[in-house]
Amino acid sequence: MNKISSNNKQPIIGIFDSGLGGLTILNQLNKDFNNYKFIYFGDTAHLPYGTKSHQSIIKFCEQIVDFLISKGATIIIIACHSASAVAIDFLRKKYSIPIIDVIQPTIKLSLMIKSNKSICVLGTSTTISSNTYSENIKKLSTNIKVYEVACPLFVPIVEEGLENSLIANQIAEMYLNPLKSLSIDSLILGCTHYPMLYKTIKKIIHKNIIIIDTGVAISDELKQILPSSNDSQNDNEYYVSDLPYRFNELASKFLKYEINNVKQISLK
Amino acid sequence: MNKISSNNKQPIIGIFDSGLGGLTILNQLNKDFNNYKFIYFGDTAHLPYGTKSHQSIIKFCEQIVDFLISKGATIIIIACHSASAVAIDFLRKKYSIPIIDVIQPTIKLSLMIKSNKSICVLGTSTTISSNTYSENIKKLSTNIKVYEVACPLFVPIVEEGLENSLIANQIAEMYLNPLKSLSIDSLILGCTHYPMLYKTIKKIIHKNIIIIDTGVAISDELKQILPSSNDSQNDNEYYVSDLPYRFNELASKFLKYEINNVKQISLK
Repeated sequence: MNKISSNNKQPIIGIFDSGLGGLTILNQLNKDFNNYKFIYFGDTAHLPYGTKSHQSIIKFCEQIVDFLISKGATIIIIACHSASAVAIDFLRKKYSIPIIDVIQPTIKLSLMIKSNKSICVLGTSTTISSNTYSENIKKLSTNIKVYEVACPLFVPIVEEGLENSLIANQIAEMYLNPLKSLSIDSLILGCTHYPMLYKTIKKIIHKNIIIIDTGVAISDELKQILPSSNDSQNDNEYYVSDLPYRFNELASKFLKYEINNVKQISLK
Repeated sequence: MNKISSNNKQPIIGIFDSGLGGLTILNQLNKDFNNYKFIYFGDTAHLPYGTKSHQSIIKFCEQIVDFLISKGATIIIIACHSASAVAIDFLRKKYSIPIIDVIQPTIKLSLMIKSNKSICVLGTSTTISSNTYSENIKKLSTNIKVYEVACPLFVPIVEEGLENSLIANQIAEMYLNPLKSLSIDSLILGCTHYPMLYKTIKKIIHKNIIIIDTGVAISDELKQILPSSNDSQNDNEYYVSDLPYRFNELASKFLKYEINNVKQISLK
């Protein structure tokens, strides 16, 4: 990708997720690219993507990218693993602006760990059934073993505010206990909701397993095309396709601060 | 409502839910109205409704009713508690054909239990926050106490096939244990997914509590306008707005038999 000079007109970065989980990634980008304006879109009318068909997800993504471009975005970040898994090829073919997905940078970061011989990916049913992680890791390194586990109850558990509960612990054990007999070096939390379960997951897995931070991975990728900065921040914009139940509570939990300029719009 | 004579041209009945849960209701109607054709629509692209805004749900329902009418439906059944709770007034004002919701018939059936002094309603966040059950019960009987409990994890638990698991039991205990100190006479399973948790719920609640069957309630209401029949069955049609993950498995679980004529369409 071509590096964009800081002398050009400041680019606006469009970032989207199926819901509010992508705010965990925006949180990292706000720290590293403090002088750029981000336009966030959460497709809360169609949430969750993790149980929807590939065809539908591609259609939703196309509508969202059209919307973000109409708002001035010149770089797009897909802060959603399910959307990255099934829509990235379509979107890159259709649009000529840079599009950063969440999967390739996460794989790149995990392969930078020298001792990494086996990676486990946790994700939604859509992400895991797409085999995107395993296929892409094997393209880059044939020696690495990849295990993939679909964890469809993790999103509703987080949306219910139960991420540190006994129930979350038991659900996490149901998904993660079968991994104990395997020798796993690193773990990818392949859904933007899953970082909220970090403590619960950390307690169950072996202490030597490295958990990959997808926010850092995307930030590293964006640094390839934009100079990072800690100047004063432009006002970000926030859009959703529906105002969900407990919106404010969830948004501030993911973003770590309150937002009060969220607009609801209908996708076309 | 006017009774429709069986000598008229056979009416076609449109029935819809946010997903496949409404098939539990269709299952009962198939038994009691075996000579009528049903057109089922599951809005799987927007599922679950239980966490969406009232405004969005009304828009989805309008598009679905337009679709069902375009397919020849002359009676509409809303086999979804969230949609019934927020969209019934709008739909009855807009359309002149009979529209049966799931809430009014369920309340009617529960008030027919003579010893009923207190009712507990379990539902999604949307259904419970709408207060539709409590307000409508109080309109009909001021002496009855109504308790309402939002159980947002029940739908994902059923969709994951975990309805009879230890985890389902613990989640059900989390929602239902606070009811033990209250004197509850009857329980309404206010979401079409919840009948799949019947055994799990039955184990936790007091054995004297009567669980109301919403399928029977809607069938009783339909009998007010259509003569029931056990003649040979017309072929039902099935439509969804997305083909979800594990569609066939879920459909046959809800409906108790396999279907192979499901078509996916886009709502307008």
